[in-house]
Amino acid sequence: MKALVVCSGGLDSVTLAYKVANEGTLVSMLSFNYGQRHVKELDFARQCADQLGVKHTVIDLSQVGANLTSALTPTSDDNREIPDGHYAESSMQATVVPNRNAIMMTIAYGLAASQQADTVAMAVHGGDHFIYADCRPAFMESFASMQKLALEGVADISLYTPFLHQNKADIVREGSKQQVPFAETWSCYKGLDQHCGRCGTCVERREAFHLANTPDPTLYEDADFWLSVT
Amino acid sequence: MKALVVCSGGLDSVTLAYKVANEGTLVSMLSFNYGQRHVKELDFARQCADQLGVKHTVIDLSQVGANLTSALTPTSDDNREIPDGHYAESSMQATVVPNRNAIMMTIAYGLAASQQADTVAMAVHGGDHFIYADCRPAFMESFASMQKLALEGVADISLYTPFLHQNKADIVREGSKQQVPFAETWSCYKGLDQHCGRCGTCVERREAFHLANTPDPTLYEDADFWLSVT
Repeated sequence: MKALVVCSGGLDSVTLAYKVANEGTLVSMLSFNYGQRHVKELDFARQCADQLGVKHTVIDLSQVGANLTSALTPTSDDNREIPDGHYAESSMQATVVPNRNAIMMTIAYGLAASQQADTVAMAVHGGDHFIYADCRPAFMESFASMQKLALEGVADISLYTPFLHQNKADIVREGSKQQVPFAETWSCYKGLDQHCGRCGTCVERREAFHLANTPDPTLYEDADFWLSVT
Repeated sequence: MKALVVCSGGLDSVTLAYKVANEGTLVSMLSFNYGQRHVKELDFARQCADQLGVKHTVIDLSQVGANLTSALTPTSDDNREIPDGHYAESSMQATVVPNRNAIMMTIAYGLAASQQADTVAMAVHGGDHFIYADCRPAFMESFASMQKLALEGVADISLYTPFLHQNKADIVREGSKQQVPFAETWSCYKGLDQHCGRCGTCVERREAFHLANTPDPTLYEDADFWLSVT
């Protein structure tokens, strides 16, 4: 396996990068700037690539993001708030960026083909399925089949999603095993100085460390908010 | 139907835009700059959108293109020549941009979802199938299924490919019917002042007008080259 890891700089994809690197099959890492409020996550992705000693490509999709409606990608005429609370709430629909994963994954496959990698690795996990259709197993399977046809005669690339049927607490456990520097990962959708502790991804992160019975090195502005929504 | 048409400014996709517009279902047009040598084709796409009176979005994927190996997307360390000849030659493999259509189509679906369109229209045709895997019917079908899953609960968008089982001569006939200003379309991969008449897409264009028994208003540098390779 020669894998390109799609890495946002978040806990899940940094853990995936360490896992693949420790398995000896990491070729390169790929991140996307799609105009997300929390673009600072990319600094953490770059730091991870530096530590693992692999090429890191950041693709600028901010113009694409500006054309996609979501609270994660504010524009001058659409500047919705990031909702507080647990992912399992309908308000989290605002954080859906239409077709985000499919767009990123097709680009990842194109780069993998050009870099002679044979695998694209994505850190989607079970907790993403409820809210994001493009993180569900049925989508991933369909996507992988589509790509075999799209690249027929050009490249043979497989999709590696080892966390697909795990939850975020499992990923924290895996990260501990892989000696991931958790403090050097970024989750918060708001992208301020510290993790807010209130948005969907902060609540999920805080809860995951708790469930995994693992010390959470993250500094949260509102460290106890998660208790009120879980 | 409310359709977003992916339009390169070439004969096929301009004909598709006119067809959809004449059917009364054209919502918007989308083009891509992926660092192609023949970027001047985009001027023809914009002109077409102006004439049809719809919004035209040009997405800049030149940075993505620079990371994909192909003779169509020259970079400082990879500047392959555009091969002369017919598409049905192995040398045309050099014009494959890995995953190009899949990348463009996922972005088109994202934009369609954000614009409340219910259809993405693509001008792929039978003549593309031999060389480009991501133009074949099996790929298109698989892609459309993948997208239904990716956008579940977000948008319900169909793929419209009316030329999929037609050849380019059929498209010229359709274009005549739809009163397409053929001289205002661009095919040539070399992107110089005039169509070269020698590259795969010029040969195919010249031949299509001949087979459709339709006057070809195009000025070619080498207007008779096609006879030697067809």
